Amino acid sequence: MRLLPVCFLIASGVACAQAPVAPSPIAEPAMTTAAQLRDAAMKGSGAYALVESLTTEVGARMAGSEADARAVRWAEQKFKALGFDRVRLEPVRFPVWRRGHESAVVLSPAPQKLSILALGFSSGTPKGGVAAEVVRFPDLAALGAASEAQVRGKIVFVSQKMERRRDGGGYGPAVAVRGQSAEIAGRKGAAAVLIRSIGTDSDRFPHTGGALWLSQIALDPEIARRATKLGDGSLIATTLVPAAALSNPDADQLDRLIARGEPVRIQLELDVGLAGEYVSHNVIGELIGREKPDEFVLIGGHLDSWDPGTGAIDDAAGVGITMAAGALIAQLPQRPRRSIRVVAFANEEQGLYGGNAYAKMHADAAQTHVAIAESDFGADLIYRFDSNVAPESLPLADAIGSVLYPLGIERGGNVARVGSDIGPIAKLGVPAFSLGQDGNDYFDYHHTANDTLDKVDATRLDQNVAAYAAFAYLAAEAEAKITPPKM
Amino acid sequence: MRLLPVCFLIASGVACAQAPVAPSPIAEPAMTTAAQLRDAAMKGSGAYALVESLTTEVGARMAGSEADARAVRWAEQKFKALGFDRVRLEPVRFPVWRRGHESAVVLSPAPQKLSILALGFSSGTPKGGVAAEVVRFPDLAALGAASEAQVRGKIVFVSQKMERRRDGGGYGPAVAVRGQSAEIAGRKGAAAVLIRSIGTDSDRFPHTGGALWLSQIALDPEIARRATKLGDGSLIATTLVPAAALSNPDADQLDRLIARGEPVRIQLELDVGLAGEYVSHNVIGELIGREKPDEFVLIGGHLDSWDPGTGAIDDAAGVGITMAAGALIAQLPQRPRRSIRVVAFANEEQGLYGGNAYAKMHADAAQTHVAIAESDFGADLIYRFDSNVAPESLPLADAIGSVLYPLGIERGGNVARVGSDIGPIAKLGVPAFSLGQDGNDYFDYHHTANDTLDKVDATRLDQNVAAYAAFAYLAAEAEAKITPPKM
Repeated sequence: MRLLPVCFLIASGVACAQAPVAPSPIAEPAMTTAAQLRDAAMKGSGAYALVESLTTEVGARMAGSEADARAVRWAEQKFKALGFDRVRLEPVRFPVWRRGHESAVVLSPAPQKLSILALGFSSGTPKGGVAAEVVRFPDLAALGAASEAQVRGKIVFVSQKMERRRDGGGYGPAVAVRGQSAEIAGRKGAAAVLIRSIGTDSDRFPHTGGALWLSQIALDPEIARRATKLGDGSLIATTLVPAAALSNPDADQLDRLIARGEPVRIQLELDVGLAGEYVSHNVIGELIGREKPDEFVLIGGHLDSWDPGTGAIDDAAGVGITMAAGALIAQLPQRPRRSIRVVAFANEEQGLYGGNAYAKMHADAAQTHVAIAESDFGADLIYRFDSNVAPESLPLADAIGSVLYPLGIERGGNVARVGSDIGPIAKLGVPAFSLGQDGNDYFDYHHTANDTLDKVDATRLDQNVAAYAAFAYLAAEAEAKITPPKM
Repeated sequence: MRLLPVCFLIASGVACAQAPVAPSPIAEPAMTTAAQLRDAAMKGSGAYALVESLTTEVGARMAGSEADARAVRWAEQKFKALGFDRVRLEPVRFPVWRRGHESAVVLSPAPQKLSILALGFSSGTPKGGVAAEVVRFPDLAALGAASEAQVRGKIVFVSQKMERRRDGGGYGPAVAVRGQSAEIAGRKGAAAVLIRSIGTDSDRFPHTGGALWLSQIALDPEIARRATKLGDGSLIATTLVPAAALSNPDADQLDRLIARGEPVRIQLELDVGLAGEYVSHNVIGELIGREKPDEFVLIGGHLDSWDPGTGAIDDAAGVGITMAAGALIAQLPQRPRRSIRVVAFANEEQGLYGGNAYAKMHADAAQTHVAIAESDFGADLIYRFDSNVAPESLPLADAIGSVLYPLGIERGGNVARVGSDIGPIAKLGVPAFSLGQDGNDYFDYHHTANDTLDKVDATRLDQNVAAYAAFAYLAAEAEAKITPPKM
């Protein structure tokens, strides 16, 4: 029986002891180096400085905006400064959706302003807005069951509440409200749609976010019919009727007004819409593997953000964590066996264009990816490590997990939650991993003006970097190549 | 030795026991009735329903707005519905300050929007705004010490932080920044002023609030010189240069940008200014005393609010608490010895016009006020009871305090903090009291869009009502009239 260090995170750092373990599929020196990387990150990883830099010097960076280009330059320069061996830009083309201004006012019975944000790819209202009576539905199912007579000519309000869960599991059901309400209500003749924000806070911040998925355009002939063809032949559409999100306190207010029984009339004006095309870039920094330079461990986050905040937790954090993890590995005396690729993805927020472009460009080389993981769930601690690998690679995944354990990270199962940007390449049969962050507070700030640097804690970022650095290093250094699961 | 009930607030309600006390200056039946009022309030006072009604059916109610008139009608109708004997309106005339729109953008080195709100009685910028380099001062003292050469032509940024304290003691030093920066900077030739919000939160909400006090106009001949004379001969002015508040995260962001060392240029546009005069009303509900109808206990809060939120904690709470306390006393089999007057004051936020008008109108009858107290510090629990009475009335104040003690309210001293609306009448020699609320969270929401109903807890309001009802009843019912302190 061999002995391996088993470590625990304690108040003053990490305490380790020798414990008997099964033979590791990763050689001892690599395990020790990974533990050293981990412990070095915990002493200060530099991730916070990266997040501070991106959110301060670029600020909000909506895909296709002037700040998008600044963010790309920022990432390119940081990769170079951090000692990556190869830095390059890969073009990502997408349609631009423009947010001019938006307003909503209760006209009667109690005149007052409401706090709203138009949803991404919402269509605009006529100038001057639309004024109509509100019809409320407690959830998307109720809207689906409504008759045309209930909805026609009205402003539909869907008041479905999102559930707070550590794993973010409340997002799926709630986000369907954002993506489907305008289509369902529009087909029943609604004038416009207001939804309760997809968010768990009770602050007067509306949460924006996409209201139309590219997959919907592909799957739904009615949407495809009204879509516009872009230069590259792809399609884009705006929502069938204008759609905006109310802050949770405003949704509560509207609930109360409607509960009083008198008709509630609202005037809604959205000056938003499509505004041409744009070419941004996935920015890629690579450490070139010393033995197998053409095999890659891919980690990353997305460079763009929504516009109301400065995109600190979504997703400067992910960019900073994965860049800092790569930079830490770059400081080792020698490169790991395989290459490590850190990707700052373009335009995740408005259609996963960066992730899709990456998968398209690298489709033929999908099998060169030995492990992929994405950081796009905020800045809180990682608590769980899941893999998505063939059974024969499970011991290797477990060995990686054992190095993460002292960080308070439990080994999950072999069904990883695949991030949105690595989703397209993962579908081509690539071993995917998830380093699951505590998402209890994530949807308090997500897609709001309140997503700012003060919500990010440097020591928690360090824990994330510790995990990503150890994970990426071990996947790159292990003798055996990780095998993807059967598709 | 007599026995008096001594009660304690426990999880399931209030537990009482008999304990020996010194003879009370208030007769036993009154003390018992006060304790019953208190305990009844704790079982559900109705205050939350009032706060819900005002913030929902009227919403934001900025002095001089269309909603101001609706708020006055609301208060009048509520007083009548709650069983007050006499309800009347007393006119309050004031100048109107208009908020059109406001914007601030960093032009260089890192273009981005800033989240701001113009300060009350700010002057406007020219259309298109002013663009200038920013000069930062860590606090008001540093601005005061600055030379004209440092400030001339620049946008002055004062980044002074407010301290969080239970008693709100951080407000005084911080609010001086709001009230004096524009005048000090303007006299040194500044183009405009931005201040870090007077608030303790880290949410991306700027805090508005008045930037010019009437007392300043009265005391400062330079301000008086540029003031406008209103119909009643009073003076009003706007700030010497345009002035707005940045949210705390935006102030942090500006701190960071400036710390990088390159000049920071900002474009600031404030479409705000004076917009004529308005007559609103103090709305007064009275319970007429059975023996001394011309002696009054006065309690109240202010009916107006700032515009970004719905004025739930500032000050629908105070209006709801004091109305509900009066309504509870109205349900007793007989009226107390003296009258109880509940006042919903007009326009506190923009110059204490309601409180000043009240004192002016009732100056000759100041001595008919036997006790005054104001609720204008949010919706959290009362923790302290202070008096401001002549020494011979201290036993009476202590007796009142003994009934509040089971609510978790400690007896403070004989230096009450006098509220802003009752300040003017208090100055005429009236016994004032303070029922001090826990203000730890108050300045997280104060004067922001986030001051909405969800920040109000019904059971905490009940505790406030319990205290106000017991206090008002005892001051009205005591045989002896409370004597004011020597001025």
